[in-house]
Amino acid sequence: MISFNNDYSEGAHPRILEALCNTNLVQDNGYGEDQYCQQARELLQEKLGSKDVDIHFFTGGTQTNLVAISAFLRPHEAAIAAETGHIFVHETGAIEATGHKVLTVPTKDGKLTPSQIQEILDGHGDEHMVKPKLVYISNTTEVGTVYSKGELKELRGFCQENNLLLYMDGARLGSALVSEGMDLQFADLPKLFDAFYIGGTKNGALLGEALVICREDLKEDFRYHMKQKGALLAKGRVLGMQFLELFRDNLYLDLAAHANLMANKLREGCQELGVSFLVDSPSNQIFPILPNEVIQKLRAKYIFATWSKADEDRSAIRLVTSWATKEEAVYSFLEDLGNVL
Amino acid sequence: MISFNNDYSEGAHPRILEALCNTNLVQDNGYGEDQYCQQARELLQEKLGSKDVDIHFFTGGTQTNLVAISAFLRPHEAAIAAETGHIFVHETGAIEATGHKVLTVPTKDGKLTPSQIQEILDGHGDEHMVKPKLVYISNTTEVGTVYSKGELKELRGFCQENNLLLYMDGARLGSALVSEGMDLQFADLPKLFDAFYIGGTKNGALLGEALVICREDLKEDFRYHMKQKGALLAKGRVLGMQFLELFRDNLYLDLAAHANLMANKLREGCQELGVSFLVDSPSNQIFPILPNEVIQKLRAKYIFATWSKADEDRSAIRLVTSWATKEEAVYSFLEDLGNVL
Amino acid sequence: MISFNNDYSEGAHPRILEALCNTNLVQDNGYGEDQYCQQARELLQEKLGSKDVDIHFFTGGTQTNLVAISAFLRPHEAAIAAETGHIFVHETGAIEATGHKVLTVPTKDGKLTPSQIQEILDGHGDEHMVKPKLVYISNTTEVGTVYSKGELKELRGFCQENNLLLYMDGARLGSALVSEGMDLQFADLPKLFDAFYIGGTKNGALLGEALVICREDLKEDFRYHMKQKGALLAKGRVLGMQFLELFRDNLYLDLAAHANLMANKLREGCQELGVSFLVDSPSNQIFPILPNEVIQKLRAKYIFATWSKADEDRSAIRLVTSWATKEEAVYSFLEDLGNVL
Amino acid sequence: MISFNNDYSEGAHPRILEALCNTNLVQDNGYGEDQYCQQARELLQEKLGSKDVDIHFFTGGTQTNLVAISAFLRPHEAAIAAETGHIFVHETGAIEATGHKVLTVPTKDGKLTPSQIQEILDGHGDEHMVKPKLVYISNTTEVGTVYSKGELKELRGFCQENNLLLYMDGARLGSALVSEGMDLQFADLPKLFDAFYIGGTKNGALLGEALVICREDLKEDFRYHMKQKGALLAKGRVLGMQFLELFRDNLYLDLAAHANLMANKLREGCQELGVSFLVDSPSNQIFPILPNEVIQKLRAKYIFATWSKADEDRSAIRLVTSWATKEEAVYSFLEDLGNVL
Repeated sequence: MISFNNDYSEGAHPRILEALCNTNLVQDNGYGEDQYCQQARELLQEKLGSKDVDIHFFTGGTQTNLVAISAFLRPHEAAIAAETGHIFVHETGAIEATGHKVLTVPTKDGKLTPSQIQEILDGHGDEHMVKPKLVYISNTTEVGTVYSKGELKELRGFCQENNLLLYMDGARLGSALVSEGMDLQFADLPKLFDAFYIGGTKNGALLGEALVICREDLKEDFRYHMKQKGALLAKGRVLGMQFLELFRDNLYLDLAAHANLMANKLREGCQELGVSFLVDSPSNQIFPILPNEVIQKLRAKYIFATWSKADEDRSAIRLVTSWATKEEAVYSFLEDLGNVL
Repeated sequence: MISFNNDYSEGAHPRILEALCNTNLVQDNGYGEDQYCQQARELLQEKLGSKDVDIHFFTGGTQTNLVAISAFLRPHEAAIAAETGHIFVHETGAIEATGHKVLTVPTKDGKLTPSQIQEILDGHGDEHMVKPKLVYISNTTEVGTVYSKGELKELRGFCQENNLLLYMDGARLGSALVSEGMDLQFADLPKLFDAFYIGGTKNGALLGEALVICREDLKEDFRYHMKQKGALLAKGRVLGMQFLELFRDNLYLDLAAHANLMANKLREGCQELGVSFLVDSPSNQIFPILPNEVIQKLRAKYIFATWSKADEDRSAIRLVTSWATKEEAVYSFLEDLGNVL
Repeated sequence: MISFNNDYSEGAHPRILEALCNTNLVQDNGYGEDQYCQQARELLQEKLGSKDVDIHFFTGGTQTNLVAISAFLRPHEAAIAAETGHIFVHETGAIEATGHKVLTVPTKDGKLTPSQIQEILDGHGDEHMVKPKLVYISNTTEVGTVYSKGELKELRGFCQENNLLLYMDGARLGSALVSEGMDLQFADLPKLFDAFYIGGTKNGALLGEALVICREDLKEDFRYHMKQKGALLAKGRVLGMQFLELFRDNLYLDLAAHANLMANKLREGCQELGVSFLVDSPSNQIFPILPNEVIQKLRAKYIFATWSKADEDRSAIRLVTSWATKEEAVYSFLEDLGNVL
Repeated sequence: MISFNNDYSEGAHPRILEALCNTNLVQDNGYGEDQYCQQARELLQEKLGSKDVDIHFFTGGTQTNLVAISAFLRPHEAAIAAETGHIFVHETGAIEATGHKVLTVPTKDGKLTPSQIQEILDGHGDEHMVKPKLVYISNTTEVGTVYSKGELKELRGFCQENNLLLYMDGARLGSALVSEGMDLQFADLPKLFDAFYIGGTKNGALLGEALVICREDLKEDFRYHMKQKGALLAKGRVLGMQFLELFRDNLYLDLAAHANLMANKLREGCQELGVSFLVDSPSNQIFPILPNEVIQKLRAKYIFATWSKADEDRSAIRLVTSWATKEEAVYSFLEDLGNVL
């Protein structure tokens, strides 16, 4: 069986494991206060073009989101997300479990716009309703779309005018940054967000996400929140070491570029076969719409998720590629698809 | 510098890393539903002598404690712990952050007795106070002492009579099981506890704890709680693989035995130098009481924690050994101690 | 100024105050364990035709909802409500603040149907999403509509088949029970719901809601939850006494009937003037659609809420009547409306 | 039976009920935005000698404490209280249920001192433990003792130096202010506390506590927290009206003075009979130590709580007086006590 089910079906990029092995027996401090975490922080600050950001390492995305958002908000404040937002749909109410409502707007492409956020603000005026405070976006989004630099600047401006925090879930940030036509760069991020995280798990790490806190008043005592939520890893070095390796050269973006390239090949191959898509996604997730019996036949050899019903006879499926996707897997899929269509 | 600061100063035992490397590129399911987690569960069930236990893998001890305890208790129910209990002191209020009070009793040796728990029960009679429901013990305790099988049986009986859940934090379970004179074995545990965890992080793993749920009515929907608290690791295989390696043969207990042996050598060496101890601990943590100026001199070469003040001039320090502690480190410490005493 | 703003603009029905005065200096137990609360419980059990229900008194609706729902659900379980549901919109995230997500479906008339709930269930299949568990309805709804006995039976059957709890917010239960054509009676309620509350504040009491718990396994330790949430009133007698008075004879339903009668007169008067309504509501809340300049003129003399925009020039307003609404206020409003239309 | 069980066994002082009756049918805004609440706020500001305080009305003490403390603290911050503190013992873990640990120090007289708080601070240094932030005291304390103005000034200074919030539970503030030798006055309070509440329920009100927030940065959005915790009473006028009546003249302090006078008579009467006390309490709670068989005999006619065991044969009981305690009840008790001693 070949899996296009997600971007975390394999272990880590071999260089990551090698790096872990090489430093394995060095004694160092626990809880992220070791030399590797420290070096990784400095390296990331360099890439981000700012020494004024705090960086903390986590073991997963849901954990990062829930610790950050619950630390940033007061009890009566709420997050705003797209209806497809990961925190709203696929984190088992993790944000609500910390006491905060997630307000949503419907979207076709998984992206929030200032006018949609304005509608939420307009509908929340007094203490009988929660107070909208933090805008949550994911980039790439849950449906593989990306925010351009221009769109992010617009969101940023809107949030500043309205005293809202802007937070980015970067589980698939690598794929967004190297998506075709993207004008966004690492060094833009600290100016655009109050906080965001750089996803490692879905881009070559064994596990690990790097939260970057840009806004000064969100930094204080942050490690208390991590510890309280069980997110301060004893051997934090494991996380630091991986980011150090991913960012030592261009590995992080190279891995994302490979994932996108594989998705591009799948996309183009599907298009040549006359297949249409649920949404136009330039990243490592694509959503071709296929007849249900075709989907059924593909399942004999491939693992992937059915995303949504298109009509009585057809559904959109989700194909995800990663740093580890093999070109032959792509060709094999396209050939088999051609045969069963 | 040589560290006796804790048992998580190094990475993982080499066999662990080797195992991760060997299976690295195999595609498998996420979130602990892969073959390695499944095999590790079956292997642990075998060691525990029971197929009727559910096993879940976590990335750390605080995370395990908070997810388990908050899943097991209703909102008005409280945990009971020794005043030295990790959940009470060193988890930044993680249990309280899930809404539950931790009731405590003072202890000299970090261990709870039925009569102490009875006092708590006697003092909690109606709805104006929380309802004591779960007894939390750690084994080894935070001060290195251990519960014998007889003591655990007594606690178990008491808890059953009083409709209390009995939960064991096994961050250092390995060290307890191989401590001198210990009559407790893996296969005893499912009969003694409603739930407990087998600590990996402090006994050779890169990260990882295995929660074992024995009581039927605590099992339902448990993965929901893990996900909601950010504790369902995407590449769960990383955790399963490690427990598979630790329990494939006797590695887990061998590593703990080495740690205890190193602690024994430190203990005996200190005793020969006329040093006394805060508490009699037969495990991988010892607490010698030393003159403050001696402590100061040792710090030039060794890293360790000052635990408590003994009198005006002397303090107890904590020395922790692990699977990775080198014999020469022990001898070096004892020699230097002899010289400065 | 005359207010049609809500049904809690006045104090209590005079008989309520009289009852409080008459028993004022009798010494009795605190926290709802007094003779008046006990008598009120027995009286309500009699009206409900069941001795197998537990009854607890609260000071307000949001408090009742949050204590009940958080006591009934485990941490990963969620409530289902109409998008207009009070717990979703107007309780400042009170349910989420206890850790529980509220899942919603869009409705035109504020009412939930089995097929809508089925859609929610269909979309929630595994531990990456919350587990839908409790269906929250209000009767009358937030837009003044009512559930018939038949509709409730259908909901009840659906919930039982799907292992869902059915809970009714009865802030305006009186108005529902005496609405035109309603076939529902007090004695039906324990068979239809796992729990519900009988609203006092909006139907003549100074303050007070009576929560009725019908389902056996929801009853245990309920007073702990009340106390923990600050909802156990020291002089609980104040609440019991009021329900005792409201249900001593037919006062509770008489007051609701007066409110409905006043709303009927308003409705008919508006209709005679050619005014249409946002929704067809047979209870004490009506939502006429009026030109914005008419609304502006009415505000010179009347207090009421603008509910929603109908089109560029017109809005729906909400007029609420109560036990205390005077017939001359109704006539005055209609006359003035006729003049400015 | 005559009750000395607590100070909330009766309804309200007759003037309170009269005031409620007189204004009962006036239409006004809900949720504390009515004229009576507004007037009561202004009146209290006048008594407190400060227009710079925000005042909010609650229905009970536990509710006030939990809403205030959870609004004031960030998730990782903890409260410090005496081991006898109401929030630690008798509120069913209400503070922990909002996510915050309560740290305690043992006390003989229920009072906190700077040196005790310093010990807590000394023991809490990093992110592995909660961060102590708010000092909770009650005045009078749970054992009837009082803080003098000098003691409060000292606490205040200590808290300011250590960046701690100082909060007073004033459930029995009236009794404290009129206790013998007390030099504290209403107008001192805003200078001494960041926030405190003036208890109504235990001093003549039907229900009601007035929270006073003095510190600027604790005021923002406070009503959101009230609503979210179910503490914003629909007919808030009921609370405002009562405080308006209690503070229109000297009624509040007069009622407290009566309660203290009755307790004084009980105390002196006991002393004349050779009875000793658990603690020297100058307020409306006294704790005589009596032989167990005497206690048993007194129960035939009097209701009161057994507080603690003194030795094998004797226990301390708690006698509470109130504004409603009748002088003949006191004499009757003393006479009966004399007969059975």
